[in-house]
Amino acid sequence: MTGIAQKLASNQKQVAISEFFEKNKHFLGFDSLARSLITAVKEAVDNALDACEEARILPTIRIQITKVDAQKDIVRMVVEDNGPGIPQKSIEKVFGQLLFGSRFHAIRQSRGQQGIGITGVVMYCQLTTGRTTHVRSKIATEPTAAFVDIGLDTRKNKATKANAGREIWYNEDGSGKEHGTEVTAEMKAKYQKGRQSVWQYLRMTSIVNPHAEIIFIDPDGEKHHWTRVTERLPTKVESIKPHPHGIELGQLQRMIAESNDLNLNHFLLNNFSGVTNRARKELCEAADIPGTRKMKTVKGDDIRHLLEAFQGERLFNGLPVKLLKPPTNCLSPIEELLIKKGLSKTIDSRFVSTLTRVPSVTQGNPFQIEVGLIFGGDMAADKPVEILRFANRVPLMYQQGGCLLTKAIESVDWRQYGLDQAGGRGVPKGPAAVLVHLASTNVQFTSEAKEALADNAEVMEEGRKAMLEMGRGLRKHLEKKKKMAKTKEKFELINDILPAIAKKSAEILERPVPELSGSITKIMSAVISETTTEWNKQTKQTDVEIVLFNYTSRVRAYTILATWPEKSGAKMENNETGGRKEALGVWAWKLESLQPGERKSIAYSLSGLERGDWTETEVLFRGSQDVIGATKMDEKFLQEIRRQEQIMDESGVDSPEDEGEEDEPQNEPEKKEVAEVPAEETVEPAIAPPEGQRTLFGGDV
Amino acid sequence: MTGIAQKLASNQKQVAISEFFEKNKHFLGFDSLARSLITAVKEAVDNALDACEEARILPTIRIQITKVDAQKDIVRMVVEDNGPGIPQKSIEKVFGQLLFGSRFHAIRQSRGQQGIGITGVVMYCQLTTGRTTHVRSKIATEPTAAFVDIGLDTRKNKATKANAGREIWYNEDGSGKEHGTEVTAEMKAKYQKGRQSVWQYLRMTSIVNPHAEIIFIDPDGEKHHWTRVTERLPTKVESIKPHPHGIELGQLQRMIAESNDLNLNHFLLNNFSGVTNRARKELCEAADIPGTRKMKTVKGDDIRHLLEAFQGERLFNGLPVKLLKPPTNCLSPIEELLIKKGLSKTIDSRFVSTLTRVPSVTQGNPFQIEVGLIFGGDMAADKPVEILRFANRVPLMYQQGGCLLTKAIESVDWRQYGLDQAGGRGVPKGPAAVLVHLASTNVQFTSEAKEALADNAEVMEEGRKAMLEMGRGLRKHLEKKKKMAKTKEKFELINDILPAIAKKSAEILERPVPELSGSITKIMSAVISETTTEWNKQTKQTDVEIVLFNYTSRVRAYTILATWPEKSGAKMENNETGGRKEALGVWAWKLESLQPGERKSIAYSLSGLERGDWTETEVLFRGSQDVIGATKMDEKFLQEIRRQEQIMDESGVDSPEDEGEEDEPQNEPEKKEVAEVPAEETVEPAIAPPEGQRTLFGGDV
Repeated sequence: MTGIAQKLASNQKQVAISEFFEKNKHFLGFDSLARSLITAVKEAVDNALDACEEARILPTIRIQITKVDAQKDIVRMVVEDNGPGIPQKSIEKVFGQLLFGSRFHAIRQSRGQQGIGITGVVMYCQLTTGRTTHVRSKIATEPTAAFVDIGLDTRKNKATKANAGREIWYNEDGSGKEHGTEVTAEMKAKYQKGRQSVWQYLRMTSIVNPHAEIIFIDPDGEKHHWTRVTERLPTKVESIKPHPHGIELGQLQRMIAESNDLNLNHFLLNNFSGVTNRARKELCEAADIPGTRKMKTVKGDDIRHLLEAFQGERLFNGLPVKLLKPPTNCLSPIEELLIKKGLSKTIDSRFVSTLTRVPSVTQGNPFQIEVGLIFGGDMAADKPVEILRFANRVPLMYQQGGCLLTKAIESVDWRQYGLDQAGGRGVPKGPAAVLVHLASTNVQFTSEAKEALADNAEVMEEGRKAMLEMGRGLRKHLEKKKKMAKTKEKFELINDILPAIAKKSAEILERPVPELSGSITKIMSAVISETTTEWNKQTKQTDVEIVLFNYTSRVRAYTILATWPEKSGAKMENNETGGRKEALGVWAWKLESLQPGERKSIAYSLSGLERGDWTETEVLFRGSQDVIGATKMDEKFLQEIRRQEQIMDESGVDSPEDEGEEDEPQNEPEKKEVAEVPAEETVEPAIAPPEGQRTLFGGDV
Repeated sequence: MTGIAQKLASNQKQVAISEFFEKNKHFLGFDSLARSLITAVKEAVDNALDACEEARILPTIRIQITKVDAQKDIVRMVVEDNGPGIPQKSIEKVFGQLLFGSRFHAIRQSRGQQGIGITGVVMYCQLTTGRTTHVRSKIATEPTAAFVDIGLDTRKNKATKANAGREIWYNEDGSGKEHGTEVTAEMKAKYQKGRQSVWQYLRMTSIVNPHAEIIFIDPDGEKHHWTRVTERLPTKVESIKPHPHGIELGQLQRMIAESNDLNLNHFLLNNFSGVTNRARKELCEAADIPGTRKMKTVKGDDIRHLLEAFQGERLFNGLPVKLLKPPTNCLSPIEELLIKKGLSKTIDSRFVSTLTRVPSVTQGNPFQIEVGLIFGGDMAADKPVEILRFANRVPLMYQQGGCLLTKAIESVDWRQYGLDQAGGRGVPKGPAAVLVHLASTNVQFTSEAKEALADNAEVMEEGRKAMLEMGRGLRKHLEKKKKMAKTKEKFELINDILPAIAKKSAEILERPVPELSGSITKIMSAVISETTTEWNKQTKQTDVEIVLFNYTSRVRAYTILATWPEKSGAKMENNETGGRKEALGVWAWKLESLQPGERKSIAYSLSGLERGDWTETEVLFRGSQDVIGATKMDEKFLQEIRRQEQIMDESGVDSPEDEGEEDEPQNEPEKKEVAEVPAEETVEPAIAPPEGQRTLFGGDV
């Protein structure tokens, strides 16, 4: 026994971060040869998209994979972008030094966060092929591009450089390239097709980055092209300061120790988001520290008290200090129409519904959940639904089972929404695909490979709520389909079978064909509507027709209302029936009289849309008698509309811990009035918009 | 646009490893309050077990969790071990410096590998409570224990020290503690019960560490005690050198650049396992580099050629250079009986089967898969089977869905083995639990939290093979159960119902009760055996009785054979029928004559076992007529026995890439002869043991 402790201790030594990741390269996503290639492409493309977004450039990215040595599984990847480029002296650090980058301390939504990604690729290439990575980059303010071969000194976590120089960078057409970066890397890897492939990663990337132009040349020389769907760049995100609700004690201690602020007052105002001058005063009082105290003297229990004031455990006037919600201009959701566009383009289906929740907060970090569901079409009915996971616009391709977003889907009992699900748990089965996107200033992954989200109660809850809401939309759609099928059956009976029977009977009896309308009216005793929404190839518009039949013996009067994608910028054309705007995205027509046996039609076209953007029109009515095929306008539906209208002008965060609800979000100084609800024919009281759901977009609202 | 590239670049900076992990603490397993506590306990207990194992001490570990402030979720953890202790000057580095440790570069099986674990705990405590971690440690060669409060300077990745000193460390009984370490840490965390809890982690740990004594005092003051099941320490593991098959080019380049060896000959012999003097010569020739070349001159293409020779791409005399398999004394599997003991103690069941595969190699790293399956008892039949995952004797509690070991289970079509499984994929359903243990010199986890294994084709294949093998055992068990149930039915007919009918009929007819044995013989026309294996509380032995009935009209002669746990050290007692050893673990009795209608019994007891160790005896027979309730002794069964006997003396690694099969493993210089197979009554040819399976232990072999 003697000396064993010393002997064991004597073997211990410090390991460099690069050695650590070289040994644990699977943490970074380099576990199998197929995945290693996807990881490399992903890191390069993510960097390109981030850089373009920051520089407000519409990205055009070209990815080429070639087999260098098929026997030894050596593959070359070239990724070229039109981003802002990297200044010559920064190249070596960006590509050759782990944990170096601009996004680690910034609190805002970005794809890269850790400063590991592309350096990990350089490291993997060096480890598996012994080769350096060739980088070429040009910035707009310099006439030539810089190039250099980058390697990694893993013992020191420093780049090695070779063959550096400058050259004129020509585009394919011979013109000079303005700005951009090109990475050429050779690695041990395997190109594969299928569900987990470079192709699939790029396809998914194009769904959530509709502003990007992506060109991919595969090892067979085949060119795949995902075109730009929108010219609109994602909303610009701003870095925010940490919010007091997300601060841990250790972090606060360090912030205070490193502070250069004059005193506590300045410290509180300069370093946090959500702290107004009023809140600053109240925090000092709650923590029982004068605001004029020099920072050097704020120590020990002071810091603890300050944190308790932050967390509402120390009170001001008997109440927790009210803080502003963190600003949400640090987030950039994809937004419904673009998700819908991406989904519809990619998967053929009958029903699409998307939903963007309002931003929420976890540990002081704003985040936002977006979901999409497509149903029907050619998708297999007996297989688990396809799950498309995204975080900050990056597709997650691996570790589906261990991901929080999957767990959110699994936590819902989908049987009540019309999907198969053994025991009401787990991934449901059916002809559907579910998309989930988390936008966050601090996406918590389970590892550096960024393939699965770690557990977090608030994010889980938001994801679950979004699923429930979307599930209700699906159920409604399926119920409506059923109802429409029944109505159609009745129509067939009335319009085809009854007259045929009458005709046949008259022939046999050699009597005249009887007038049926009276009998039909007796049988049906209802007003029926039928709606078609169809893409018109010639006019490039979406044609909508709402037909009403009065199969009752009395004159009827209705207001007919229809949903239309107004907020997506569509325009209503050829609407000869006139009518008026009822609310945002809802048009209304008054039908003063519909005679017994009469048929009336409302027709119009929608311009400014693309094929697949709008496939179903929801028809509603106001009036005393039911209309089969339409929904009675009720309070709930109105609430929904009002909520949508209001949210167009608002983007505050609902923070569960935050009780300062009268405070305005900092980046939205003016709050518009809630649009007035048209009073005509509505009896429902005006109701404040409930928290949570932002808008529900789809054919089936 | 001008200047945007420079502006973006100017924000970039280097992040320290501790800052990185502080921000990404969820990578280390600190994602929720409940999991954070489990992670902290896990890191402390893993360290204790590793240290004890290295110092060859039977571990006694005491874990206490107390609530410090229930409202603020502050919890105190105290973990005390009887390990070798840590010398005073090493304490700060072990606890306060990330990536510092002894196990990172060592190639052998150990729980800790990365030098992150316990420092991560110190970091988490500091971040969430602002408090330091108190460490007390005593080594055997010093009279007093050292104590110190450790914190972490995350900007510098250095420990901070406070209140250091020395004291006499008293045990609870007042005696002086000889050696050991005690960690007291306060953190924001939540104590929970259930499937993912500290209690469950410790229970699972005790299954795979039967040599450890574990005492746990929960926050309610309740004491849980998992006693030591064996006094035998796990096999001592030795560090090995890297094997040429596991070297990547980048690694070889660095090894050569940093080499102090005289020349290539010395380099090859000194730095690798598996390279004999013959192989050294052949490698040099295949790589076309003289062995006398100075290391400084081995560069560029030389290194590439050398690697190609390693990988068999450059040939010697037209063939790849044969290398020795890596030694396997770097691994320490749990072994079947101990797994079985652990499982039986923990879960009540009817059937237990365990299996340890022979070691295999992936990327030059030896590894070994062990599996266990328990079936029946009180477990729910309509739920997914419980999966118990372990890596290097550490339970894996999270990320089950994303773990390679789970995937290995899911890859098997369990329906053919008698379990429910939708579509033949996914986790099967049934009253069963499946245990999988990977022992490896380099366990590839998906993240630093060490909760799920990353994809690896070889490990997957081994795991899958083990599952298939075990599945076959389960099917056999279920088939046997069915057969036994049928036999029992027949018995009831003969012994109860027929005589009752005869008696009743005789009464009604007022005739004498007829002699039935002739009729029964005619009906059955079979020899039947019935076997019971029961734990005898009084004698603390396992009583076995095999009863034979001859229900035929002729005299029968058999050799009856029964399995018994000989290699686990059991002894056969009170075996009055005598017999002789047939093979290891198989006893044989000659029954010279069994008269028509005769009943004979073979009875004996097994000592040296504990309750649950042996619950089913497999009975076989040799003879011309079938015995219902026993299995005919056949070639396959004999093979199995011979294989077991041989493997008792052998432990080489089967490397798929390795063609040097005539080479001996380096740590097993002597190979014993295969035990001779008893010739009597066997006609099967002696067959060499097939690769792969090592032994199949269980009641049902």
